[in-house]
Amino acid sequence: MKTASKSKSKKSAAQSKAAKFVYFFGNAKAEGNAKMKELLGGKGANLAEMTSIGIPVPAGFTITTETCDLFYRNGKKWPQGLEEQIRANMAKLEKAMGAKFGDRDNPLLVSVRSGAAASMPGMMDTVLNLGLSPEVVQGLIIKTENERFAWDAYRRFMQMFGDVVMEVDHDAFEHELEDVKRKRGVENDTDLTAADLKEVVTRYQAVIRKHTGEDFPTDAYEQLRKSINAVFNSWNNPRALRYRQLNEIFGLLGTAVNIQAMVFGNMGDTSGTGVCFTRNPSTGENKFYGEFLVNAQGEDVVAGIRTPMPLDQMSKTWPAIYKQLVAVRTKLENHYRDMQDIEFTIQEGKLYILQTRNGKRTAAAAVRIAVELVKEKRVSQDEALMRVDPRVLDQLLHPTFNPKQARTKIVKGLPASPGAATGRVVFNAEDAEAWTAKGEKVILVRIETSPEDIGGMFAAKGILMARGGMTSHAAVVARGMGKCCVAGAGEVVINYARKEFRVGSTVVKEGDWVSLDGSLGEVYQGKLETVDPELSGEFAKLMKWADGARKLKVRTNADTPADSKVARKFGAEGIGLCRTEHMFFEGDRIIAVREMILSDDLAGREKALAKLLPMQRGDFEGIFEAMNGLPVTIRFLDPPLHEFLPHEDENQKEMAAVLGVSLEKVRQKVEALHEFNPMLGHRGCRLAISYPEIAKMQARAVMEAACNVKKKGVKVFPEIMIPLVGMKKEFEILKQDIIEVVEQVFREKGQKIPYMVGTMIEIPRAAIIADKIAEGAEFFSFGTNDLTQMTLGFSRDDAGSFLGAYVEKGIFEKDPFQSLDQEGVGYLVQLGVQNGRKTRPDLKVGICGEHGGDPASVEFCHRVGMNYVSCSPFRVPIARLAAAQASVREKKAKKK
Amino acid sequence: MKTASKSKSKKSAAQSKAAKFVYFFGNAKAEGNAKMKELLGGKGANLAEMTSIGIPVPAGFTITTETCDLFYRNGKKWPQGLEEQIRANMAKLEKAMGAKFGDRDNPLLVSVRSGAAASMPGMMDTVLNLGLSPEVVQGLIIKTENERFAWDAYRRFMQMFGDVVMEVDHDAFEHELEDVKRKRGVENDTDLTAADLKEVVTRYQAVIRKHTGEDFPTDAYEQLRKSINAVFNSWNNPRALRYRQLNEIFGLLGTAVNIQAMVFGNMGDTSGTGVCFTRNPSTGENKFYGEFLVNAQGEDVVAGIRTPMPLDQMSKTWPAIYKQLVAVRTKLENHYRDMQDIEFTIQEGKLYILQTRNGKRTAAAAVRIAVELVKEKRVSQDEALMRVDPRVLDQLLHPTFNPKQARTKIVKGLPASPGAATGRVVFNAEDAEAWTAKGEKVILVRIETSPEDIGGMFAAKGILMARGGMTSHAAVVARGMGKCCVAGAGEVVINYARKEFRVGSTVVKEGDWVSLDGSLGEVYQGKLETVDPELSGEFAKLMKWADGARKLKVRTNADTPADSKVARKFGAEGIGLCRTEHMFFEGDRIIAVREMILSDDLAGREKALAKLLPMQRGDFEGIFEAMNGLPVTIRFLDPPLHEFLPHEDENQKEMAAVLGVSLEKVRQKVEALHEFNPMLGHRGCRLAISYPEIAKMQARAVMEAACNVKKKGVKVFPEIMIPLVGMKKEFEILKQDIIEVVEQVFREKGQKIPYMVGTMIEIPRAAIIADKIAEGAEFFSFGTNDLTQMTLGFSRDDAGSFLGAYVEKGIFEKDPFQSLDQEGVGYLVQLGVQNGRKTRPDLKVGICGEHGGDPASVEFCHRVGMNYVSCSPFRVPIARLAAAQASVREKKAKKK
Repeated sequence: MKTASKSKSKKSAAQSKAAKFVYFFGNAKAEGNAKMKELLGGKGANLAEMTSIGIPVPAGFTITTETCDLFYRNGKKWPQGLEEQIRANMAKLEKAMGAKFGDRDNPLLVSVRSGAAASMPGMMDTVLNLGLSPEVVQGLIIKTENERFAWDAYRRFMQMFGDVVMEVDHDAFEHELEDVKRKRGVENDTDLTAADLKEVVTRYQAVIRKHTGEDFPTDAYEQLRKSINAVFNSWNNPRALRYRQLNEIFGLLGTAVNIQAMVFGNMGDTSGTGVCFTRNPSTGENKFYGEFLVNAQGEDVVAGIRTPMPLDQMSKTWPAIYKQLVAVRTKLENHYRDMQDIEFTIQEGKLYILQTRNGKRTAAAAVRIAVELVKEKRVSQDEALMRVDPRVLDQLLHPTFNPKQARTKIVKGLPASPGAATGRVVFNAEDAEAWTAKGEKVILVRIETSPEDIGGMFAAKGILMARGGMTSHAAVVARGMGKCCVAGAGEVVINYARKEFRVGSTVVKEGDWVSLDGSLGEVYQGKLETVDPELSGEFAKLMKWADGARKLKVRTNADTPADSKVARKFGAEGIGLCRTEHMFFEGDRIIAVREMILSDDLAGREKALAKLLPMQRGDFEGIFEAMNGLPVTIRFLDPPLHEFLPHEDENQKEMAAVLGVSLEKVRQKVEALHEFNPMLGHRGCRLAISYPEIAKMQARAVMEAACNVKKKGVKVFPEIMIPLVGMKKEFEILKQDIIEVVEQVFREKGQKIPYMVGTMIEIPRAAIIADKIAEGAEFFSFGTNDLTQMTLGFSRDDAGSFLGAYVEKGIFEKDPFQSLDQEGVGYLVQLGVQNGRKTRPDLKVGICGEHGGDPASVEFCHRVGMNYVSCSPFRVPIARLAAAQASVREKKAKKK
Repeated sequence: MKTASKSKSKKSAAQSKAAKFVYFFGNAKAEGNAKMKELLGGKGANLAEMTSIGIPVPAGFTITTETCDLFYRNGKKWPQGLEEQIRANMAKLEKAMGAKFGDRDNPLLVSVRSGAAASMPGMMDTVLNLGLSPEVVQGLIIKTENERFAWDAYRRFMQMFGDVVMEVDHDAFEHELEDVKRKRGVENDTDLTAADLKEVVTRYQAVIRKHTGEDFPTDAYEQLRKSINAVFNSWNNPRALRYRQLNEIFGLLGTAVNIQAMVFGNMGDTSGTGVCFTRNPSTGENKFYGEFLVNAQGEDVVAGIRTPMPLDQMSKTWPAIYKQLVAVRTKLENHYRDMQDIEFTIQEGKLYILQTRNGKRTAAAAVRIAVELVKEKRVSQDEALMRVDPRVLDQLLHPTFNPKQARTKIVKGLPASPGAATGRVVFNAEDAEAWTAKGEKVILVRIETSPEDIGGMFAAKGILMARGGMTSHAAVVARGMGKCCVAGAGEVVINYARKEFRVGSTVVKEGDWVSLDGSLGEVYQGKLETVDPELSGEFAKLMKWADGARKLKVRTNADTPADSKVARKFGAEGIGLCRTEHMFFEGDRIIAVREMILSDDLAGREKALAKLLPMQRGDFEGIFEAMNGLPVTIRFLDPPLHEFLPHEDENQKEMAAVLGVSLEKVRQKVEALHEFNPMLGHRGCRLAISYPEIAKMQARAVMEAACNVKKKGVKVFPEIMIPLVGMKKEFEILKQDIIEVVEQVFREKGQKIPYMVGTMIEIPRAAIIADKIAEGAEFFSFGTNDLTQMTLGFSRDDAGSFLGAYVEKGIFEKDPFQSLDQEGVGYLVQLGVQNGRKTRPDLKVGICGEHGGDPASVEFCHRVGMNYVSCSPFRVPIARLAAAQASVREKKAKKK
């Protein structure tokens, strides 16, 4: 199955130039350079680059990522010629270092490290000190005049090789080491003598034999071959696979393998090792930052056995070396024009740089560094825009927990809506409202939420749901409110009757404090301190640049004046989706809605709708005022009517009492409206076709509100959006109904307001016949949530049961409800845009699904020529930056 | 909304040649001809044609259908110039007839009749004897020397005009007529004297004044104008609209209006009127057939007041006229080359032909006439194939009720599966099986059926369901079995506890006899006699010609050896869809299936699957044997697993007991598998991705069965079909799994069998990426049921609540689940075929949705280049004929 055409072409390309598997670097010259990341991996490319620009890098060579790909294609065998090239490069390396690999008199030791094109820190395998054997150790002792170091190097090598290559459990070695330490009565590894370490080596040999039935290999080339294979294999180990999925790293060939002469930070008090950042990775401050350890190897820093010293200290301990390191910092940052994360080792007073890469950083640091690099004239504004991953901006907009606090995790669910919240547990929406009214902070805990819970969701500080996915209704609503939400926490077993929930043996009762991290999807016991976000001046500057660069407008999905104001603060340029049904649940309105649904005839429905009219009109007035001067797209009633009816016995009785009808009648209605697949049922414009009076009431409410606020001097641009259109005639019938009402309102009010009537394109058929729909529709908004569900045949509420397995098996690279499936759904979106503009070249086109806030999807929208994207308020900055990046990328591509 | 571009172009075309609204015929010359049906309507075109070929037709003229269209576009006003043209043609008519319209001395009377391009018998309006007034009656008396006739003509005219044009209730006139008859003490209209009829006229005048406040118009042109408008208006009266929907008549401009000189069959004993068919419309026998009435007008025949005489009788009564009529019969049939339905009137010994048209006929007659016309060398085989509507063949394949029986209808539902059945009512599947086992005939009555009911459905003679549509699961299964089924009978209120159902005040209890007509969707009280179908030699001949003409292969959807045999008898050339899940419900298998579903681990599932393996293998052996020499496409497990679990308390308890698990566990599983939108849930290949062991068991069962029957000399061509593929990788993973099992079976059995692995294209995304899927898939079968649901965003189980309104409002011309939505779904089908063949030019492509048996859809499949269609066994002959017609039509189009 691996013989897909794309791969085939890659394969033959790889084989045709198969001559070169290995790239050498050393003596200030290198065969590779920083641009060859795809082929040499990030580490290898940077080692080559650093070598070329005169940074002191130990010599070595890199086996390409293509070689790794061929290894997998060949059934995990080396391609023809690799062995020879490795031996030739090893000879060059021996010459450069003046030592010999596997030689007992003058041994060359090497490290074998992974390094893919994208950074995957710690995910793949590494072997150090390779080339040692009992005999070679003797040579090393003579060469270094340091017996303890030599035996320590060998036992470290055995331990790593034994673990990584021979798959002997790490603990088996630690056990022996600890035993020797106990016998000697010492605490630290460093207190062991050469003799002790020699005993450790002997014990390790026994461990290896016992666990594998084999002896530890003594041949240097056998060690090298096996280590290279281990690194190749580690490309697809479970944690590497998982890391790539989580970080959306796809399309790479494999890992490169870097074989490099060893340098040692553990050769005494003039040796050491450390890591530094050219700027502060937490804050972005332009200050040299890092830490180091004297007499230690790199893994000692990582293992955290000894506490490293801050870099400042080095200026006192080793001023000359510190000065060299500062020079390297300047040189590398100037060269790479970005903050660098540098690994270094000092061997007996000589500085070596082992790695440099663009440093990982917090969102705040990313923004500050990007903006300051522009100020320092190191990068252009366009480049600065590309330096910040739009997805991380979320971190800057929501509260977070004070990171210094200890926390006890109860459970992990899905990070459904970002932010941090702490409060007391309640189990229903009414309690959430009541407790909040009394001044309590609450967390609403539900198995799942229904639209009826909206008041409680709004009142709560955060929401925890046992069911539901990232794009469930509750998650969408929570994100719209900027409310922290953890969903799909399947281990949470809720007992409403006893007002408690359990996770395993942990029981949380009503009134207990819990804390939610909606960005991580985690739930903690007790009360945690939250830190409110503060938007920096650099953030504002970066956003201003983004607005200057982008072509796409960014609107928001907002249903209330409050949401609208938040979104406007975040830079929204209008409302792309105002869902009118959410207004139907508030307060007493639901009673009128239910009265309408229960009516047997038009007159009854019109009577109930007349009660709703002033309320809807009031909502629209508030929203129009909040969006003064900006367009507002109002979607008419969309959900199936049964969503407005109560399904529990208790509530049905209450409804019957309130409306003065029999319980039987309520039950019959609920039964009659039951649907097997409500997603594909009687909803959207199908409701308005069956009950035109609903659309007419809504048209009247919109236009009366528009006329009223206009009198107050508000500039208003209503865009009426008909949902779920699939047939041209559906749209035509409803547009006609709407126009008649609007004209009537204009006559009554004695004024006119410019407005448009358009449609959502959310059914595959609508995209297909978009040219016909555009005959009447004045704008399109792609509802990519539903379009994804129908194009893929997935219900987002049900896909949870298999979508995980799908992403895991690589069938989907990303959750298609979070990032637009460009190949499938994207085809229909593009078709819809093209077809629509065929009929109406100036057709205004936008997107209002969840995808409007996903950077990759925003770029897609830019590419297909949409006018705007619309997303939840807190995603507006993300969309603005993503839209700017799309423009910059396009500009770059055109230059090429 | 009427300004769509297509209509616009029609409009301007109509206006540019607007010069000619009226076409004259008379004196053996005509401006029109039979080919101008679109413009002159069927009646007008044939009147012109008959005039030209010398048939004695009363002279007249036809106002075109385009004029009707313009009338509607102009806000129901006549277009400029129409009035003048009508007056000019009336002048011609007066000249031809030697009389004058509205003249009191020598009056010309005319009829005004509708006539669209498609026959809509009785749906639109007619006015006869137009041109009379109290003064003109006097002239008519002098002219005809028949006072009684003249007054009778006037009162008939008043009654029709009053009803049709002035909208006075018919009964108001009847009431007066009856009153006069009672006063005179006579029984029949014909017993009234001239004086009596004069009194009737006076009373009618009063009726008109009372109901309309106006006098009956006396001006002939006013009468004419108003009658023409009434006919135009009747084009869109409710019954005409409904008729066009039911008969799928779309895209016509409107009705033509025929104004023709009156001839009278009621001028005494040498006058008369009648209707004849050139062949027997019930049997197709080539024998002159018809009936006539002496001294009567056409509506007397229709009204059924007097019993007409058979045509034979005329050869004795009026031998000369009979001879003329026989000559007309021969001339018209020779001319039109099809069986004609002819209306005639004899006025004082002179024969007039008022209409001819292709006669409506039963299915049996249609087949016989088509075949005999070829024998008589009147038409070619290709023409004969075009003469039979494939849809009517259904009538020939199923039992029908003896048409002579009286019947009492209880309720009308949807004609879900054709045929007639009579039996005693039972209310659950177990009873259906038990009663049948005891030798009873039963009708299974359910609110809705579930797959568990399959045994009972099979046992029953017919199925009545209160819910569900034409394409509900039960309907599909019933059609597959050729079992009569009435579905969606919403008025049926079933009480399972009391074992009875009610329709209004009618109560039917368990054991009562009822009869179902599945072709009409009707349910009758009591036991009715059924007539089994007998396939004629003509049918076989026509089918043979069809097989010679068609390019599309026709397969069947069959899940059992029995179904397979039936389908083969009907000419199926393989199985296009064998649904393996139906096999999972039979007998004890469901226990093993449930055991599998309840298993918590792979080992448990494999254990349960091992029990299913021999049963599935046995099924496949039976099917392969039945289809010896023909390909069999086997679809792997498709429905969501919850369909296999019981949902009622009782059954869950039983299941827990049988499997030896707790009731709680069963309930939890049912709960865990619950889905909001099962259509879009965990089903199809998604199951096999989650549980590869299911697909592997099925692959093993298929291939072991194939090897086993091959040993017996059966030729077997299995095609394994993976359902619900949307992603290329889904298919690749499963194909690999299947191939591994198949190769293993081949090794075990020591033989190989040619086989294919392909997929259903039923998700929009699959059609979009068909080029990629075809890299691995060796065949495509379009699952247009699901593809329609997803492309249109309609669940077929839920669409019932609005689809009716949609068809009514003209949003859909046809139910898209019955006839493929070619514009929307068809786009994706065509895209899928093209994309698939781009990768694999010889890709075998078929369709296996319900549409495979719909003639319009079959033609579409032919057009897009599919290799085959597959449909339920009883639809195979329909598909064969439809496929032949598609070929013939294509041949014709190419010739042009």
